[in-house]
Amino acid sequence: MSEAAKPAKPAKKKGIVSPQTLKGFRDYLPAEMILRNRVIGIIRGVFEKYGFMPIDTPILEHLETLVGAGGEEINKELFCLESPEGDPIAMRFDLTVPFARVVAQYLETMKLPFRRYHIAPVFRADKPGPGRFRQFTQCDIDAAGSTSVAVDAEIIAAMCEVMVALGLTTAEDGTPEFQIRVNNRKLVDALLEGCGITDMDVAKHVLRVVDKLGKVGVANVRLELGPGRIDDSGDPIKGVGLPGETIEKILSFIAVKADSRQEMVAALTEELPESKTSADALQEMADLALALDCLGVSEGQAAFDPSLARGLDYYTGPVYEGFLPIAPEFGSVMGGGRYDGLVTRFMNQNIPSAGMSIGLDRLLAGLQSIGKLQACPTTTEVLIINMKWTPDHELLKVARELREAGIPTEVYMGARKKGLKDQLSYANNKEMKVAVILGPDEIEQGIVSVKNLDEGKEAREQIGDNEAYREAGKVGQQEVKREELVGYIKALLNG
Amino acid sequence: MSEAAKPAKPAKKKGIVSPQTLKGFRDYLPAEMILRNRVIGIIRGVFEKYGFMPIDTPILEHLETLVGAGGEEINKELFCLESPEGDPIAMRFDLTVPFARVVAQYLETMKLPFRRYHIAPVFRADKPGPGRFRQFTQCDIDAAGSTSVAVDAEIIAAMCEVMVALGLTTAEDGTPEFQIRVNNRKLVDALLEGCGITDMDVAKHVLRVVDKLGKVGVANVRLELGPGRIDDSGDPIKGVGLPGETIEKILSFIAVKADSRQEMVAALTEELPESKTSADALQEMADLALALDCLGVSEGQAAFDPSLARGLDYYTGPVYEGFLPIAPEFGSVMGGGRYDGLVTRFMNQNIPSAGMSIGLDRLLAGLQSIGKLQACPTTTEVLIINMKWTPDHELLKVARELREAGIPTEVYMGARKKGLKDQLSYANNKEMKVAVILGPDEIEQGIVSVKNLDEGKEAREQIGDNEAYREAGKVGQQEVKREELVGYIKALLNG
Repeated sequence: MSEAAKPAKPAKKKGIVSPQTLKGFRDYLPAEMILRNRVIGIIRGVFEKYGFMPIDTPILEHLETLVGAGGEEINKELFCLESPEGDPIAMRFDLTVPFARVVAQYLETMKLPFRRYHIAPVFRADKPGPGRFRQFTQCDIDAAGSTSVAVDAEIIAAMCEVMVALGLTTAEDGTPEFQIRVNNRKLVDALLEGCGITDMDVAKHVLRVVDKLGKVGVANVRLELGPGRIDDSGDPIKGVGLPGETIEKILSFIAVKADSRQEMVAALTEELPESKTSADALQEMADLALALDCLGVSEGQAAFDPSLARGLDYYTGPVYEGFLPIAPEFGSVMGGGRYDGLVTRFMNQNIPSAGMSIGLDRLLAGLQSIGKLQACPTTTEVLIINMKWTPDHELLKVARELREAGIPTEVYMGARKKGLKDQLSYANNKEMKVAVILGPDEIEQGIVSVKNLDEGKEAREQIGDNEAYREAGKVGQQEVKREELVGYIKALLNG
Repeated sequence: MSEAAKPAKPAKKKGIVSPQTLKGFRDYLPAEMILRNRVIGIIRGVFEKYGFMPIDTPILEHLETLVGAGGEEINKELFCLESPEGDPIAMRFDLTVPFARVVAQYLETMKLPFRRYHIAPVFRADKPGPGRFRQFTQCDIDAAGSTSVAVDAEIIAAMCEVMVALGLTTAEDGTPEFQIRVNNRKLVDALLEGCGITDMDVAKHVLRVVDKLGKVGVANVRLELGPGRIDDSGDPIKGVGLPGETIEKILSFIAVKADSRQEMVAALTEELPESKTSADALQEMADLALALDCLGVSEGQAAFDPSLARGLDYYTGPVYEGFLPIAPEFGSVMGGGRYDGLVTRFMNQNIPSAGMSIGLDRLLAGLQSIGKLQACPTTTEVLIINMKWTPDHELLKVARELREAGIPTEVYMGARKKGLKDQLSYANNKEMKVAVILGPDEIEQGIVSVKNLDEGKEAREQIGDNEAYREAGKVGQQEVKREELVGYIKALLNG
């Protein structure tokens, strides 16, 4: 029987269903959603400037499209269900697998190169925690059809431009507010090849251990590359079993520091054994350094860092990861790399591709924590006060005029018409800028009262007494001829 | 795993997964997605001008939140699954139930009135067909907290403004390109009360029969209101069993025509029995007519139509439905009404609400069928031609300059660098406006060749021979000093 045909389960309490969000999921109420929309608009603008075009794909995919595309961990985190036809299906866990499917599915008509962006929710049934949700939004760009590192450079430049467009710069003490770390799988391959490590599984094990550097420290990485160690809970961690000399070569490689990308290439040349793999890897990094220079990406914005190992076991060339040095607790807020093999999952053809993904929720949380983004409770600028003595349709006339002039306007529509103070407080809480008051006298005289809500805000909120309030309430208030209303409010809104 | 990390593990070599979209689902490739984004932007702009604020809610809800909220039909169409904790959950089938849940869940902190918009996908496991998909996008506005028909008038005005903003007007022969039909559940209640029909189930049955008017015609509606009939496939349809006199009263009521909303109110006054229910219903419609006048909604844009019965069994006051008279086959492209009881599903309190929903996919299909919207294959304006003799990083320098000036620019990044003709054809297919050509000679001389792609397009496409092509290819091409490049292209793009 199809899941969808299961009989309905009655509500718990007779009649009333408890209103609640699912565990691990969240609602975005206006203040947050306005911010999200604004940030998504900025991100889209950057993506389009770099020549990426939007696509969207269904939230549901064939199970076999997704299973195994993200490793064992992800397989366990799939939200699985059945199609009405009884086929196994699941909710997508990222936007890269659908991208690869789309490239394979439409290659005939679509033609390469193909650069697309995709901003949409993905789903993972993992353990929710602070800042971890089971539905979250990714903003991805990917480019298929070229092996040139110029593509990687453009992607890194787009990552930087997103950060800059969101207001991140370099702090006064010289700390950059964001940084992209860049490494290359091929460099590590050259290193391991020089150490005589050719077994792919051993190489990946090394990369996974190196990836832990920031978390467990050099001493523990040294043990894990060698004989293994006992972790804090007393459990044994199996080591890679490398000889001491090899371990020191690897640790020396990932510890290399340099002042610029070009200098890093020179320094790594010293560390790597001479070989064709080394030469190719170093040439690719030199090309990438030059390309980043040409795109105006500063050394502070994107630095080569041989200790960056995250994702190196699935990427095939350059990898890049963006973080906020002044809020490191948010970890990677965007990341990606070159993955020349993913489309082969869906077709017998290798399509060279590179891309990156922004974790929108984490980026927003990070930006808000460092005071870069303020929630904005409304986009409405004018509230038309609705007092019981003025008929609704007279208020609608004013609303129409303001809206026709492009001014976002709300007519207060409460259950019962509340008093002036409540309505002004409603407008203040939403940080609206102007209130319009229209009584019967004013209608007769062809005037309206316009109140600049930024003035006298505190006085209005502190005064409880009605008589005194009436006086305080008049701060920032101006009578305006009806025919001059729109112009007056426009001027007020423009400062 | 980081939200931002992109799992891009190559597929198991065992087998290739067939790249396909699920039955009843669709991909939006760039040409369509650019159009969707543009239309969504227009709709959002209108919603915000009317003082509606965005929210978003999870795609998954507790099953009990959804079951029974949309009737038996919808229960069967839910995509059901299990949460990781083993609880029954489902994908939302509309945005109104989540709205009601949100109002109930946050009422304490959020305070009324609450007007929100929500643009997001919904899911129904029904039979897919031409233009019917299992995932589709709704654009909803809803306002909670007022019983005033001024709210309904604003919603209808917003519906009209969306249509106008999308380019719909009145055709040259006087046919409006869109129209909102408006009716009121209370009018029908007054009529049925006058006929002595007080049983709610009977009343709803009458409404369902009347709703079929357009499909089955007056004669069949007459039979279904009475003894019943045999349908085309020979199956019996049970009738409501009303006496002939009552049937004629109902048919006479829904046949009323008038030239204006005010005249319709007058005409309906003649049809309805004198009663408090009638007086209230007629007053509400008179108020709505006045409110629509004040909001500048023309008679052609929104007409009162007593035969509109869709959703009347669910709504409690005014109902509204927008369609395209010149493309009636698309049916209702937006619709809504007043539903004062939905929030009571989630709390022991009645919250008066009204709202409407745009079926984005259907609206887009309708607009495209009447030539109102053209798909736009790209938002990129400039293609930088990538010939094998010019190093990538030189092209990136030009791209950077153009992007810094805000011009969306793509550097052609094909798998192997294709020839000029192929690259120009790539740009033409995407309707880009300008191509930039940069060879080694040009770099040395500090110039670039800029080609206006709107010129000589046909010649370039028709000529196969390389020599002749080289000449035709130069149509619309101009050598420009490098430092004048940005200004020159800006001028070209601005016409």
